[in-house]
Parts: sequence; structure tokens; C-alpha cells
Amino acid sequence: MRLDFQVTVLGSNSAIPSHGRNQTSQLVNIANNFLLIDCGEGTQIQLRKFKLKFSKIDFIFISHLHGDHYFGLMGLISSFHLNKRRKLLTIFGPNGLDEIITVQLRHSNTRLNFPLRFVPTNPENKALILEEKDFKVFSFPLKHRIPCTGFLIQEKHGLRNLIKEKLMESKLPIEAIRHLREGKDFTDEEGNVLYAVEDYAYPKRKIRTYAFCSDTIYDPQIIPYIAGADLLYHEATFGNDEEHRAAETFHSTAAQAGKIAKEAGVSRLLLGHYSTRYLDLSPILDQAKAEFPESYLSEEGITYSID
Amino acid sequence: MRLDFQVTVLGSNSAIPSHGRNQTSQLVNIANNFLLIDCGEGTQIQLRKFKLKFSKIDFIFISHLHGDHYFGLMGLISSFHLNKRRKLLTIFGPNGLDEIITVQLRHSNTRLNFPLRFVPTNPENKALILEEKDFKVFSFPLKHRIPCTGFLIQEKHGLRNLIKEKLMESKLPIEAIRHLREGKDFTDEEGNVLYAVEDYAYPKRKIRTYAFCSDTIYDPQIIPYIAGADLLYHEATFGNDEEHRAAETFHSTAAQAGKIAKEAGVSRLLLGHYSTRYLDLSPILDQAKAEFPESYLSEEGITYSID
Repeated sequence: MRLDFQVTVLGSNSAIPSHGRNQTSQLVNIANNFLLIDCGEGTQIQLRKFKLKFSKIDFIFISHLHGDHYFGLMGLISSFHLNKRRKLLTIFGPNGLDEIITVQLRHSNTRLNFPLRFVPTNPENKALILEEKDFKVFSFPLKHRIPCTGFLIQEKHGLRNLIKEKLMESKLPIEAIRHLREGKDFTDEEGNVLYAVEDYAYPKRKIRTYAFCSDTIYDPQIIPYIAGADLLYHEATFGNDEEHRAAETFHSTAAQAGKIAKEAGVSRLLLGHYSTRYLDLSPILDQAKAEFPESYLSEEGITYSID
Repeated sequence: MRLDFQVTVLGSNSAIPSHGRNQTSQLVNIANNFLLIDCGEGTQIQLRKFKLKFSKIDFIFISHLHGDHYFGLMGLISSFHLNKRRKLLTIFGPNGLDEIITVQLRHSNTRLNFPLRFVPTNPENKALILEEKDFKVFSFPLKHRIPCTGFLIQEKHGLRNLIKEKLMESKLPIEAIRHLREGKDFTDEEGNVLYAVEDYAYPKRKIRTYAFCSDTIYDPQIIPYIAGADLLYHEATFGNDEEHRAAETFHSTAAQAGKIAKEAGVSRLLLGHYSTRYLDLSPILDQAKAEFPESYLSEEGITYSID
């Protein structure tokens, strides 16, 4: 059994909510840890609509301080408070987000029921910002009009699956089984291998990663950060005919998202952050696919597995 | 023809959006002036859903700084900006709202395309805060956990309707007609009345008022501010069985809203700010009606005329 690793899209539109599309937000489930990435206005309403238990969210990641990526955050914090949350909430985001939160709590005279920890992200360099039992999260710089980071969520090697038939052959002590599942040979006190992990466990699997890039101008410098990701979310605000407008606003076109996916050698590309000018998104998809066939439109309420 | 005067409810729930109900917000149309009162999260989405042209909004009134009354404001301001608004927006609200707005504009590095004027409300005394050609707005103190005001929107006497038959009888100069419509007698240079307004115009009509009270503990001291209103919106967060909880949280029950309406001699009462604990609102309505028969549940998307 592999650990759960999937992303549910809560918002796919840029700038202004329109065509029934909400602003950027995604819920990542990794090994039953729930991570929220960005939090546009109405994110808590989307979470409820899709029957996602938002009390399970312990980590929130905000890419940058344009409102379409965080205007839903205070509402979510407030609902956690009103729902009598007690456990720690950790928010990762650009410097300044702490001031935005603090000012609003102060003016509403709110003392949260739960501890809130704020961790500022570094918009200049890749950094490991969270390490838990089953996963790590890195932030890395994106080029946008204001300081902005992407996020890379990476599973850690979990326990190895053991080969049932081999276990049946020999009666292994519990201690040996624990070692083998952790991927270590079991040895005696002199260091002689009694049970070798290669004999008893299936091979290591590839470490899966999810890379999230929004918002960004077309920027091949991000490729080392996202290379080989199993799933890449890359903004595709504009169609190819708006390449000039994309550059001017520090956004990307569909083809540019496809190019980044291809050059980074990812497995699949998820598009999003669509401009309000597009009601029909099929040209966006087609333009990305022309560069990178494994392109998909992100759609609200849909869960994308990362395998 | 009377001037338009109506209120469209955009949100009716308290604290947390639930049961498909949004947080407090109302759009008032008075003589084709559009006033937004309170602005819970998702208000801009509600405006779009009900096909209300939000570019027409020139005045926003925020009662207090609990998030369910203003978390949608930044999103709305941001959408005005992105939609290339140029005209003045005036926001009335408690001290501190200016800081909340300014901090967020600063961190997103936004210079708005349009002038934004902030007018702090006075939570201690009734005050005239806006006077336009066709209407006035007053704020008045409400008793809540943090500084909070209600708002009273009052039409001014518009032009008088003239009696057609009387006009046909005598050929009045244009100047005289203008005077009569403005409710003034038309005189010669010595001050002799040539055409008396009582002879040529229909009687003055009652000045219509809409009073908005949210959030507030049961407080008969507000009665002088809202006495005789044609329509009173008064919060009814709780059912009568939660009177203790209502007092504790500085909110009102349905019966208390009804009592205020009765004692203030208003024509109609609109209930709202329902607690998330109520899926079925009919007990709230029944309890208010037991005190004041002309009680109505506010429902999102419904427009209530003020006559």
C-alpha cells in the first residue's frame, strides 16, 4: 500500500472570481496530512461544498500577497476559531502576511483559541520549510511582480513492503521485521547480516513529488527546482496569443507552461489560474498539449492523484 | 413616480457561512444610488450570482470589524481595481478599517486606479455621515462586543408631483412649475403668491427610511434612532431558547428583534444573521411574529421594497 498523495483543486481562476470559477486554492492530502496551498476568497465555502473536512488542515502555504491567493485566509482562521480548534496551525508565507493577520485579529479583538505559528518564506532561495514523518515541503523562488514562491511537496521513503513468501519461509524476530521495513539489514552484534533487506523487501520506490508554481512569468530558471516532479501545477493565465500581455503582467501562457513541463521532465502538468477572459478553456489545454501531451486542465472539486 | 428604494439581501448567516447561506451583506438601491452595507466573505461572488452590477456601488458601510461583516471588502476593492474603476469609492466604517485596507494594499504593492476615501464612523453618537441629492445616511451606536454602528438610510423629499388638471387650466410659466415641483409657492417680486404649492401639487409624502441593525444585544436604547422606520433590519441570531447565549455574545433573539420593531413602531421587520445551528429558520420567524406580525426572514437574492 502506498501512502495517499493527491491534490484537490478548490479554485482555478485568476484575479477575479468569474464563470463560476474561484480563486487559487488547492488541498493536498499526503499520508493523511492535509496541506492547503493558497487560499483565495471563498476557499472555506469551497471546502464545505466539496465536503472536505477543513479541521484536518494543519499547514497552510501562501505563495504571495496578491489577494486572489490569500483573501480567504482570515475567514478560514476565523472559522477555525469559532469551531473551537485547539491544535496548532502553521502558516508559511511571505513576510507581511503576519502583519495582515495580526492587524485584523487586533481590530476584531480576537484571541484565537489555538496557537498560530507563522513561518516567513524566503523569496530568494530554495529552502526546506517543513519536515514531517512522511513528507517534506520546500519553497523556491518564482518571478512575479511581488515576492512569490512555489512549493514542492515530497514524500519521504516510507516503510518498505516485505515479501510475504519469504517471511513465511523463515520465522523472523519482530525486531528483524522492523529493521527490514525501515530498509535496513538486520545484523547480529558483530555486524554480520542475518537478514538482508534486498532478500526480504520489495525494491525502493521513486520518491513522489508535487510541484506548485503560481504565479510566475515564463522562467526556465525554476526547472532545477521542479525537475522530474510527478505532477507539476503551473499557471497558464493566458492563451498563446497573449504572450506579450503575459510577460507584461509576469504571468505565463499555456505553451510556456507546457515548455516548462517538458524541459523539467515532469510526468504530468496541471494548468490553472485562468484569466477571466476565457470562458472556454479548451484552447488553453490544446496549446499546452502541443508542447507537452500530458497536460490537464485543473477543475474545481476534482482530485488529482500523484503516482 | 416615487424614487426606487429597495434592499437586496446578499448574505443572511452569522459567523461562519453554512447551509448555503453567506455572511452579512446587503445592497441598497435608493434613487439609483447603490449602497453596500457590510461585506462578508464572498460578497462579490453573491453580487455576480444575482446579476447586480457592482460597478455602480459608490458607498460602502461597514458596521463593525468582526470578519463576517467585512472579509469580502478587500476582494471587492481589488475587483474594482482590476476592472479599471476610476470613480471615487467612499467607505464608512470603524476606526482601524483604514489600517486593514492600507496594510493589504501595501503588501500587494497595489496603487488603486481609483480614489478611495475612508470615513470613520462614530460608535458613541448618532451622526449624519452622508448627504446626497436624494438621500441621507446616519450612523448610530449599537451595543456589541466591539465598536459597532447601525445605519439609517433616509430619502429626502424629492420633487413634488403636480396636479395635471390644474396645470391644464392655467398656463404656468416654466419658472413657476419649477418652484411648485420643489415645493415652493411662486410669488411676484413683492412676495405676493401667484401660484400656491397646495393648489398645484399633491401633498408631501412620508419620508421613507431603512434602518439596519447588526450586530447588537437587545437594547431598547436604539429605539429613538430607528423609530418609525418603514423597514427595519434587526439581527436575530438566536431562537428564544438561547436568550442567555444571545446576551453573553451580545446578540439578539427573534423575540427581542420583534420587541424592538414593535416598540420602535416600524412598519416591517427583516430578520437575519442567523446562527449556523439553525438549518430550518421557521421557528425564528414564528418567534419574531409572536411579538411583531410584520416580520420577515431575509433571504439571499431577494429584494425587499421600502414603501
